[in-house]
Amino acid sequence: MVSYAGTHFEGFQKQPRGRTVQGELESAIEKVTGQPTEVHGSGRTDSGVHAHGQVFSFYSDASIPPERWPAVLHRWLPQDIVVLKSAEAPSAFHPRYAAIGKTYRYSIWNSRVSHLFSRAFVYHHPVQLDVSRMNDALSHLIGRHDFTSFCSVRTASTKSRIRTLRQAEVVEEPVPYPPSTGRLLHLYVSGSGFLYNMVRIIAGTLIQVGEGKRNPEQMRSILADRNRQAAGPTARAEGLTLLSVDYGELDPFK
Amino acid sequence: MVSYAGTHFEGFQKQPRGRTVQGELESAIEKVTGQPTEVHGSGRTDSGVHAHGQVFSFYSDASIPPERWPAVLHRWLPQDIVVLKSAEAPSAFHPRYAAIGKTYRYSIWNSRVSHLFSRAFVYHHPVQLDVSRMNDALSHLIGRHDFTSFCSVRTASTKSRIRTLRQAEVVEEPVPYPPSTGRLLHLYVSGSGFLYNMVRIIAGTLIQVGEGKRNPEQMRSILADRNRQAAGPTARAEGLTLLSVDYGELDPFK
Repeated sequence: MVSYAGTHFEGFQKQPRGRTVQGELESAIEKVTGQPTEVHGSGRTDSGVHAHGQVFSFYSDASIPPERWPAVLHRWLPQDIVVLKSAEAPSAFHPRYAAIGKTYRYSIWNSRVSHLFSRAFVYHHPVQLDVSRMNDALSHLIGRHDFTSFCSVRTASTKSRIRTLRQAEVVEEPVPYPPSTGRLLHLYVSGSGFLYNMVRIIAGTLIQVGEGKRNPEQMRSILADRNRQAAGPTARAEGLTLLSVDYGELDPFK
Repeated sequence: MVSYAGTHFEGFQKQPRGRTVQGELESAIEKVTGQPTEVHGSGRTDSGVHAHGQVFSFYSDASIPPERWPAVLHRWLPQDIVVLKSAEAPSAFHPRYAAIGKTYRYSIWNSRVSHLFSRAFVYHHPVQLDVSRMNDALSHLIGRHDFTSFCSVRTASTKSRIRTLRQAEVVEEPVPYPPSTGRLLHLYVSGSGFLYNMVRIIAGTLIQVGEGKRNPEQMRSILADRNRQAAGPTARAEGLTLLSVDYGELDPFK
């Protein structure tokens, strides 16, 4: 299980060019074992998106006890990646295919002035947002729906866009003093899986509801439209964090 | 009143070389008024030290309403400085000489793993700290004392080292999930004034008490020694934030 600050990465997945989380993990493992190694993640995160509990797997026959990998990798990893824990998994375990759900958080700093101390990890929205309107809107999204309106037009057209949103809530979090200059709002969403840009488009649409630009009930017609144009903008990457991946009975850390 | 993230500054005070908060404020004001302007702060902060409510003053005859300066300066200031509010002050007001007290916070991330999302704003201490021992130690520092043992040897020798510590407390703050991988401890200190490195030396000594390397009662003999060598190390700059400056009846924002 790995945390990373996504700010200075071109996302999780390895790219021909640019710094990626997968690339850093693979090169750290290779430095330890001397073997080129392929890392599999539970899914991609985009450039600028953070993770608390991303899950990845790799094969190694090195004589390192399974739970020792966080300490062993620590000295080979950059400061913006921290492996939190590790465990041996059955050879059939694949972090993407075994996942039965994911939880994301979208963080909004709702204040006239920017949050100097969390600037890279929250989206700054200066206009006052109405949390109860945002939660009203979310109630229409919970459940099993075709989320075509809430995914990037770059989503493969052959793919099913039906997903189940199990829980979704906006909460105002306590802000350790200082700053007392605004409100920290967290949108938490848990579901069976998420389409490309889905959480960020939900967040962008909810912000319009919170500002009063849309009615909460509009979420129903947006879903029914099955058209990306019906929803709001894709909210900025810096507010998004993959919190955890749910493996149910197959959880290797259980 | 100005907030800044100290990470990329050589401190508040203007230097022959290097980026400073005072330098950025003066050049922003000059861009607005066309006049070279001198900024006075409530005091220096060191390289890497942050501020929430630093106070500064300057003279201007520009026809800008006093309370409009935060908005006016915003477009000329870098992203790591935010002016929070402004007000007209009597011409005799000097932010340093009018101050009757200051409050600082020292932030400790007490966890085996670093706090990825606040790395620049907390000091990471991996060994478990005992908060109640730390508060016991602080109780011996509260009051009027000669703080020679708790200031840098570079403090001018002609200066009185007697200061009054009015309040001092270590509290465990709620950490918005994630991460749930550690504890956020805040040391708050309020006093009549602080000597060079005083808060960081108090923090460094308290950390040794929290680890069990020193007894809380030792604070008394450290004070009595009037010798910098008697106290613990100077804790790292990144954990320190100037929270507020107290002007009592003279507060220009009252």
